[in-house]
Amino acid sequence: MAISSRECHLKSRPQGVPTHDNFEIVTVQLSDPGPGEVQVKNLWMTVDPYMRGRMNDVKSYSPPFQLGEAMQGGAIGEVTASNDPNFKPGDLVSTFFGWREAFNAPGAALQKLDTHGLPPQAFLGAAGMPGLTAYVGLLKIAALKDGDVVFVSAAAGAVGQIVCQIAKLKGHTVIGTAGGAEKVAYLKEIGVDHAIDYKAEKDLTAALMRAAPNGIDVYFENVGGTHLEAALMAANPFARFALCGMISQYNDSGMGTGIHGLTAAVGKQLRLEGFIVSSHFDMMPAFVKELSGWVAEGKISWRETVEEGIDRAPHAFLKLFKGENLGKMLVKLG
Amino acid sequence: MAISSRECHLKSRPQGVPTHDNFEIVTVQLSDPGPGEVQVKNLWMTVDPYMRGRMNDVKSYSPPFQLGEAMQGGAIGEVTASNDPNFKPGDLVSTFFGWREAFNAPGAALQKLDTHGLPPQAFLGAAGMPGLTAYVGLLKIAALKDGDVVFVSAAAGAVGQIVCQIAKLKGHTVIGTAGGAEKVAYLKEIGVDHAIDYKAEKDLTAALMRAAPNGIDVYFENVGGTHLEAALMAANPFARFALCGMISQYNDSGMGTGIHGLTAAVGKQLRLEGFIVSSHFDMMPAFVKELSGWVAEGKISWRETVEEGIDRAPHAFLKLFKGENLGKMLVKLG
Repeated sequence: MAISSRECHLKSRPQGVPTHDNFEIVTVQLSDPGPGEVQVKNLWMTVDPYMRGRMNDVKSYSPPFQLGEAMQGGAIGEVTASNDPNFKPGDLVSTFFGWREAFNAPGAALQKLDTHGLPPQAFLGAAGMPGLTAYVGLLKIAALKDGDVVFVSAAAGAVGQIVCQIAKLKGHTVIGTAGGAEKVAYLKEIGVDHAIDYKAEKDLTAALMRAAPNGIDVYFENVGGTHLEAALMAANPFARFALCGMISQYNDSGMGTGIHGLTAAVGKQLRLEGFIVSSHFDMMPAFVKELSGWVAEGKISWRETVEEGIDRAPHAFLKLFKGENLGKMLVKLG
Repeated sequence: MAISSRECHLKSRPQGVPTHDNFEIVTVQLSDPGPGEVQVKNLWMTVDPYMRGRMNDVKSYSPPFQLGEAMQGGAIGEVTASNDPNFKPGDLVSTFFGWREAFNAPGAALQKLDTHGLPPQAFLGAAGMPGLTAYVGLLKIAALKDGDVVFVSAAAGAVGQIVCQIAKLKGHTVIGTAGGAEKVAYLKEIGVDHAIDYKAEKDLTAALMRAAPNGIDVYFENVGGTHLEAALMAANPFARFALCGMISQYNDSGMGTGIHGLTAAVGKQLRLEGFIVSSHFDMMPAFVKELSGWVAEGKISWRETVEEGIDRAPHAFLKLFKGENLGKMLVKLG
């Protein structure tokens, strides 16, 4: 059916920290879905730190968002009309047509969602890309092995909360950083051995050294800057750093803050390895299978921070960079 | 026999760049070798950048040099007297008793040297640890594969000159940096495709981008600082950085110069891995076998820069940090 939909456009490219002025909510009219097309009403969309990179007009692993068009990103929606025999109204679908309330798209661009009893938005978080990111980074990139002491930055975030719990259920000592008392309390709740409130510490390296007097063997990097410097100082010989993200650096219009102490990587024979989850989608079946078991056994849980309505989507995105999300940051659209 | 020997002691720990005042040449009297001991007169000793780290009083992979004692390092010597039936006068031996003209040591601390027709000092360079370092870093750590474009810093140094030639004989495009016209000419002589005189370039990143318009796949890191930043900018997705050393940083008493642009390691999924050659001595037989073949076929050659006499050893060491060596820096003692 012909309906109107509000979408969030990138109005201008942010210089440094994005502001509300960089975004624009635009109402568009959707025609009936064409031949082979499906009409979808979004229920949930995700905002993620990596989207900041797509707001710059530079070549990267993800193409830049275009000015004056709806941005893209993960979303969970419900089919409202369908000209594709594979989809019928009421079906839940997972797509990359986020940042909008509704859309028409060819059936081939949608993936039917079987929730296995989980809330649908979990597939934008723990059971989706952030969860797989945690799994891949910890088990494949950092090659977690018995006895490793694991350090996780942004440990109460969408990815960090899953990293901590996978490491804990495998019997590791886990040190996590987060900003503020509420997040620190949450980290303790999920079993993190040493929760460091980085906002309350003048010297993060000293705090990490106290928490890990015998050093760290794995660092799951989400933050960059002083977090990475602390990890370099605390690293044991042959430690592995899974470089998942460096959110502290994404708004730097220059070259980012310089990292000190990288010579330690030579003497301590460290391995620092960056990764993008989309290069590891082959691990999704194994991850989903393991996750289901852990959830059933009560070994993994997660938190969400939710904003409601497409007009709040820019606000939700901006909160990521202020550290105002506990767990997965989501926007509820339906 | 009882003889006198001059040795080089660490007199004081350098703050920043070492100076001649940090060293002292001391004459000691050697008694006859005791039971099971061998007396050795050194012919050659090596000075290497990693020794700078041992001059600091900090825990590292190599223990710190002690003040008021002879320093240690690789040396090639000739047996002058022996109470060990495994050694006889005239035998060539390889040891870690460098920085001195002569010494007594248990036979077990010496390794008999079969030169296979090479000059004995080659075993402190191309056929020794620097050569093995090149081999391990390029083939194992960076996991060189067909089609890789290889970037080498300090390419005319002891390690770099071998890295370049191994990469060339395996058919790769090689870009190397060195300081000054003489070194650049040498790089061209050994087949380096693009030799960059980093001292003549205002913007090393721009120079590297011109030399490697399609990016680099392997970076053999000997220098750190702006070299590493340039490599991060020029790196292709999934590039591998073998972190062998960062000589530009060793004299920094603080935390070293900050490295900018490390977020590229996430988006480009780079692997940066530090290594120490002593962790890979198991590859020595394979290396020596391959090297012999390459030398016989005229595919590998090398240069040396030689200072004469133990009293010149501090000067030879200091030259490393001024980039005043072409190829392996050595001290001839006998």
